Amino acid sequence: MTIFYPNGKPYLNHSPAKTDKSKVNFANRGMTLEEDLNITNQYYLDHDLAVIHKKPTPVQIVNVDYPKRSAAKITEAYFRKASTTDYNGLYRGRYIDFEAKETRSKTVLPLKNFHDHQVEHMKKVKSHGGICFIIVKFTVSREIFLLDAEHLVEYWAKQKSGGEKSIPKAVIENRGYLISQGFMPRIDYLAIINRVYF
Amino acid sequence: MTIFYPNGKPYLNHSPAKTDKSKVNFANRGMTLEEDLNITNQYYLDHDLAVIHKKPTPVQIVNVDYPKRSAAKITEAYFRKASTTDYNGLYRGRYIDFEAKETRSKTVLPLKNFHDHQVEHMKKVKSHGGICFIIVKFTVSREIFLLDAEHLVEYWAKQKSGGEKSIPKAVIENRGYLISQGFMPRIDYLAIINRVYF
Repeated sequence: MTIFYPNGKPYLNHSPAKTDKSKVNFANRGMTLEEDLNITNQYYLDHDLAVIHKKPTPVQIVNVDYPKRSAAKITEAYFRKASTTDYNGLYRGRYIDFEAKETRSKTVLPLKNFHDHQVEHMKKVKSHGGICFIIVKFTVSREIFLLDAEHLVEYWAKQKSGGEKSIPKAVIENRGYLISQGFMPRIDYLAIINRVYF
Repeated sequence: MTIFYPNGKPYLNHSPAKTDKSKVNFANRGMTLEEDLNITNQYYLDHDLAVIHKKPTPVQIVNVDYPKRSAAKITEAYFRKASTTDYNGLYRGRYIDFEAKETRSKTVLPLKNFHDHQVEHMKKVKSHGGICFIIVKFTVSREIFLLDAEHLVEYWAKQKSGGEKSIPKAVIENRGYLISQGFMPRIDYLAIINRVYF
């Protein structure tokens, strides 16, 4: 298990860049940001703190078989682009909406991780009084940040007029908030929401 | 096109129970409640009135083919039970959450249209300060009602202790609100929300 300092930085007893197999850190092996967030949301739900769910993956269903005496089987379907964000719900009476992204880059969050519909959706949510942000994980350092959607909207607009194709990590560190990581809950983003939005 | 009185009742120039083919009313043929709600939500979105979406159908993906030079194809998948409701979003700064059901019954809404997880979810939403309700369409009379989730929760609990397996239409008429139907928007449930929850 990885140990985290209270500021959310992981305690690493060896360089994660090392490739010597005998020294690979197996902590959280295979745990994606999505899995950790799902467990976190389940924790919030079980402790009656918030009602936040990941939306199902949008799928275009083309063909379904209905075999006798067994469940309907989808035999042809395709992934569709999401027109909104992946997570939404309710916390302390407020509407919560966010998208989660991981990047292997050490220095930037590439904007290719998002698309127009999502950014438009986030703008709408903010203008209608919702709380909207992104959760970004830098997988190499294992740091996870919460960044209000307004900054994504700003960089998205810049990109469209020929600007950079990513948000520098330094900007995320500066304008965003490092999320504490632990065992329960794993990614305690409500702690940040309490501080920033209430 | 079906014409509706301002109170939401449809103007029917013949009995909808008649089976004489030459006199079948083709108005709205094939338009399900879900389709009408999707068009309504798109109208609300386009007019910047609310940000409310249907969640994708939850699917358990078992097998995916990745053919060269074309989109990933899901070749085996199954429908999963939804753990929440079908629709949620944001209106005038408030979290909105609802489930929509049609019934061919003229007298009741059978509770078999819902399941435990959904009712639990609705309870949670209400206790965290969200606006939560069901939209019920009686397909024979074409009437559509909005009923606050508290009444579903009440009948659900009654059923569990041996009570009736449905909500009488008379109760829905009495405690719920008839929704006006028109061309744009088709099912103007925000008009009811304005009146009841603000």
